[in-house]
Amino acid sequence: MRIAIGVEYDGSAFCGWQRQHGQPSVQAAVEAALSRVANEPIEVVVAGRTDTGVHGIGQVAHFDSSALRSEYAWVRGANAALPAAVSLRWALPVPDDFNARFSATGRAYRYLILNRPERPALRRHFVSWIYTPLDADLMQAAAGHLIGRHDFSAFRASSCQARHPVRELRRLQVTRMGDLIALDVEANAFLHHMVRNLAGVLIAVGSGQQAPGWAAEVLESRDRRLAGVTAPPAGLYLTHVSYPERFGLPQLLAEPW
Amino acid sequence: MRIAIGVEYDGSAFCGWQRQHGQPSVQAAVEAALSRVANEPIEVVVAGRTDTGVHGIGQVAHFDSSALRSEYAWVRGANAALPAAVSLRWALPVPDDFNARFSATGRAYRYLILNRPERPALRRHFVSWIYTPLDADLMQAAAGHLIGRHDFSAFRASSCQARHPVRELRRLQVTRMGDLIALDVEANAFLHHMVRNLAGVLIAVGSGQQAPGWAAEVLESRDRRLAGVTAPPAGLYLTHVSYPERFGLPQLLAEPW
Repeated sequence: MRIAIGVEYDGSAFCGWQRQHGQPSVQAAVEAALSRVANEPIEVVVAGRTDTGVHGIGQVAHFDSSALRSEYAWVRGANAALPAAVSLRWALPVPDDFNARFSATGRAYRYLILNRPERPALRRHFVSWIYTPLDADLMQAAAGHLIGRHDFSAFRASSCQARHPVRELRRLQVTRMGDLIALDVEANAFLHHMVRNLAGVLIAVGSGQQAPGWAAEVLESRDRRLAGVTAPPAGLYLTHVSYPERFGLPQLLAEPW
Repeated sequence: MRIAIGVEYDGSAFCGWQRQHGQPSVQAAVEAALSRVANEPIEVVVAGRTDTGVHGIGQVAHFDSSALRSEYAWVRGANAALPAAVSLRWALPVPDDFNARFSATGRAYRYLILNRPERPALRRHFVSWIYTPLDADLMQAAAGHLIGRHDFSAFRASSCQARHPVRELRRLQVTRMGDLIALDVEANAFLHHMVRNLAGVLIAVGSGQQAPGWAAEVLESRDRRLAGVTAPPAGLYLTHVSYPERFGLPQLLAEPW
């Protein structure tokens, strides 16, 4: 039987989603907990392999198991076995043609910037700190140049293993809330470091280093060297993964982050 | 010269505000950092001595020093020397009759509850987790019985060293935001554990264990044993301390927590 799960995690406690020898990964923690509940080895397939320090709010994965457990038993059992920095939000039996990675039709991330002169203490693992004042309106103007279906080679890490660089950027919304600026980003899929490279370009515009139109130039160049700095990971959250309705996955309302 | 400072800290990293032998306290960290900037021993007096695990957003303290430093130098210097879990938001010269503790005319706390079946991972140090569904309207009705100037003996820890138990509770607002419930509490001053005991009573009402009118019974009893459980510290934030306007302290907008 195939089971889909929703996973929340504090990325600051892990080397990232993906299992790595000798380092604590979210994947290894989740697999160990589920294997214990199933009483057999479990391997999971994930929607989005997040990097070191990146957080999961609405991460989705799936696994196959011959163990018969209720949804409640999967969630409660796994949460009893998982480290404090990971929790399962839900579990749901899905058809065998469901694949957390390949069935996904969209991913949403939030990038949270704390924009004030003094460094963060309380939120230090959960925001990117930019002390230069940022103009959210300029950032939104720059974002407008990036929305749509484009070749995002300029926003792609050199380590990216995707087969082609074209992605459909459906949303890039800039919202200021006091000292916080949230970038809400949605696309069919993302290239490696794409959200953090988008954030890096918007930050350069928001701080006045570049004009909003520069975002279009970077995009058109398809040259990674133009986009400049990859923004740091601490402010990044995978908030939601979309699937075709027929799979009936839970639509959790994310609390405000 | 007397200097007032605004302090933010992640209480999960400390034994509380107050210096304690052999344990990491916020006070010891702040005093060590300021002593380094001043190049002489500094002792601070604080507005609210928060317990283990309680966070500071708008904590205020003062100290005396013969060192002449700009406001900027105090803040930048201290933040370079402080551990990552503490930061100074501001520093301001104040008259010698200013006292962070005794000049304060009001304190505001926020108590943040994550109300969902699955335990928190991302916010585990920053919310109190209550898995029983809570009715925020019932909690607000109970809160209405507690507003005003009362003898709060029933909400006072046995360890409380205050000279009398009468406090003026000016605000006790219950706000639901998705899975989160925020209790915003303001008073002239608080007894030891008072906010967490108020939260404990509101949680008992919100979960249906008690009717809203029970809050009035507890208050009138002046008996600590009736109020029941002291809610856990992780969800508690000291958000603001009020002073007479003549001191001209910065009024920072707290970002949404």
